[in-house]
Amino acid sequence: MDPGPEELRLHGLRGYDQEPSRNKTLIINSKEPFNAEPPVSILGSSYLTSEDNFYKRNHGPIPILRDPTTYKLVVTGDVPNPVSLSLDFIKSLPKYTAVATLQCAGNRRTEMSMRRKVRGVGWGAAAIGTAAWGGAKLSDVLKHAGVMYYSTATNQGGRHVEIVSCDFCKEENGGPYKASIPLLHATTPEADVLLAYEMNGKVLNRDHGYPLRIVVPGVIGARSVKWIESIVVSKTECQGFFQQKDYKMFPPRVDWDNIDWQSRRPLMDFPVQSVICEPQDGAVVKSGDLVDFYGYAVAGGGRGIERVDISVDNGKTWLEAHRLPKLQTNAYDSHRPDWAWTLWELKSVKVETPCTVIVKAVDTAANVQPADVDEIWNLRGVLNTSWHKIRIHGPPESKL
Amino acid sequence: MDPGPEELRLHGLRGYDQEPSRNKTLIINSKEPFNAEPPVSILGSSYLTSEDNFYKRNHGPIPILRDPTTYKLVVTGDVPNPVSLSLDFIKSLPKYTAVATLQCAGNRRTEMSMRRKVRGVGWGAAAIGTAAWGGAKLSDVLKHAGVMYYSTATNQGGRHVEIVSCDFCKEENGGPYKASIPLLHATTPEADVLLAYEMNGKVLNRDHGYPLRIVVPGVIGARSVKWIESIVVSKTECQGFFQQKDYKMFPPRVDWDNIDWQSRRPLMDFPVQSVICEPQDGAVVKSGDLVDFYGYAVAGGGRGIERVDISVDNGKTWLEAHRLPKLQTNAYDSHRPDWAWTLWELKSVKVETPCTVIVKAVDTAANVQPADVDEIWNLRGVLNTSWHKIRIHGPPESKL
Ligand SMILES: [Mo]
Ligand SMILES: [Mo]
Repeated sequence: MDPGPEELRLHGLRGYDQEPSRNKTLIINSKEPFNAEPPVSILGSSYLTSEDNFYKRNHGPIPILRDPTTYKLVVTGDVPNPVSLSLDFIKSLPKYTAVATLQCAGNRRTEMSMRRKVRGVGWGAAAIGTAAWGGAKLSDVLKHAGVMYYSTATNQGGRHVEIVSCDFCKEENGGPYKASIPLLHATTPEADVLLAYEMNGKVLNRDHGYPLRIVVPGVIGARSVKWIESIVVSKTECQGFFQQKDYKMFPPRVDWDNIDWQSRRPLMDFPVQSVICEPQDGAVVKSGDLVDFYGYAVAGGGRGIERVDISVDNGKTWLEAHRLPKLQTNAYDSHRPDWAWTLWELKSVKVETPCTVIVKAVDTAANVQPADVDEIWNLRGVLNTSWHKIRIHGPPESKL
Repeated sequence: MDPGPEELRLHGLRGYDQEPSRNKTLIINSKEPFNAEPPVSILGSSYLTSEDNFYKRNHGPIPILRDPTTYKLVVTGDVPNPVSLSLDFIKSLPKYTAVATLQCAGNRRTEMSMRRKVRGVGWGAAAIGTAAWGGAKLSDVLKHAGVMYYSTATNQGGRHVEIVSCDFCKEENGGPYKASIPLLHATTPEADVLLAYEMNGKVLNRDHGYPLRIVVPGVIGARSVKWIESIVVSKTECQGFFQQKDYKMFPPRVDWDNIDWQSRRPLMDFPVQSVICEPQDGAVVKSGDLVDFYGYAVAGGGRGIERVDISVDNGKTWLEAHRLPKLQTNAYDSHRPDWAWTLWELKSVKVETPCTVIVKAVDTAANVQPADVDEIWNLRGVLNTSWHKIRIHGPPESKL
């Protein structure tokens, strides 16, 4: 088969002149590469986050594929049977839809930086979103390369699955973004790792990885590589920048002069998180008025949300928020892993302004969020899951 | 086959005159039923906890089985093929050894009660232990009853696996202790749920469940039922006392007059925990002396320990403890779930007495422990995983 001319195939771009058009309401944290999040109030307003409002996280210009019939996914490395698969073939595999939340490890970094400066894109609390991802299971695709379900190693010694993009990243000296997950994770069908070609029932768009991205539910967004060119089963973990020199968790005492990247493992599952989406920090409310609160809560690793607590008096007393029903998929089963957030609300709460409002959540393994950002401060500003706090002010005093 | 006379078979006892003999160094929290833990300093001294030192948690007299050839495990309920299995048959199934930590949900309850009184057996920090459990996988036993691996439901509508003991519990009005886990958990081979007949290479003794107990790795000890008489696959969760009216997590504001047991799910996975085993609270050290610290850290749900932090100045500065190598089993693989604790040490730390020493751990999903017991206080005193603190005093002032 003739793969067609070079320019019709999936390829990265060097410049920013062919970026897709984007929602004007996005808050842009970096223009080139394009990193943006929606207003946090939008997140709490619908269970699924629209493609337009879903945060965009990029390390270079958005790759382009002009003719989808030319696309080939290469599955190679330490596998019994290296293959090259067309998009049509991948679409002919059993299709799964997983409702899964993706969260950037840098979500809420700006709050952490306010305590003490950290390095990284300055994200608010909206570098997170939930979509219905449709695609083939990675475990099924690997089977076509001869790797069985529940494999910890291939006969060729492969133990990690590296997913390679086709973009050009500064941090990789112009090489592509890449990441790996353990082979056992990739080959466990219940882990629901997808090669997604659909987002919320529509063709995945360029900003989110067209034609094919990986979605690793329950894991920091950094492993859900977009614009996939190849899948390489390897003996070792991905040696790329984002797996080895980024997205690791250091204690507060480690700084840029004493950091030892090899001392830590790459982050995978994220811990329990919760955020007040509405009202927002700095809202003005007359003392004694009733306020409706909305937000999200989520835990990684398939853990669900057991409880959401709210305080309108800076932690002296607590109320329980109402957890809204989750979107049910066909495969919904409360004993299966829970990959998606829980939206919550608490209505008509009397507030005495000025006040500090706090939210914190508990996951199904009884894990809690740290009370103070100081406990988990880290130089890269990842996984800020400290209690989310907003200030509500009284109206300016009217002079008689 | 003649099952033999009644008194030779597995049966509960009404009185405490046939209790097994026990280690004299155990700290007895309740004599009848026998509830006891070892001195916490012993836990840090070896990776596997001996049967003698392993905490004992009971709700009635210890059952007895005089002739093991009479034993039958009944597997029944909503299964295609109810069966009754001899001990020899269970031993003929593939044998697995899982090194797994069991932790009572009430571990460290006494510390919680010191803040505000809670109800329950007053455990110190040693209601935990790690053993090499040998036995058949529950998933294999269920297969003999016609239930396939990875089942969420049987054709008969079974979705839960209830494990029933043969003891007489006050809380069950003289009925047996029982608990359930979801069918999917029970039928997932990688969850390593065992029907154990061995502990640390020896025949399981009476205190720990002879002839057969269940071991549910990563889950609170309350689900690892001892002296099993039957396994009943059911449409609903176990309706027993310990599943429905105990071992649930409530927020600090819930008290005995406003508790709604139905509002919460039974606890399963436990959250990240760590304890200083040596020195102990109240130790006396000359200011400026060097001290060696030892302890354990563990997380439920198969999560491992990523880091252990120690402070000898009440949290102002932190040091990282050295995580000791874990016991490797044949099946050791860093990508498989981690069911057992991590022992840690930090040697030759200069302490300025008097001082407060704190330990806290981070698990592989970046979950942290709550700083203050007030954040997680609950009326039943379960899952006290707040930062563990001990006081080290200076020697009494010598008068010149
Ligand atoms: Mo990210
Ligand atoms: Mo327990």
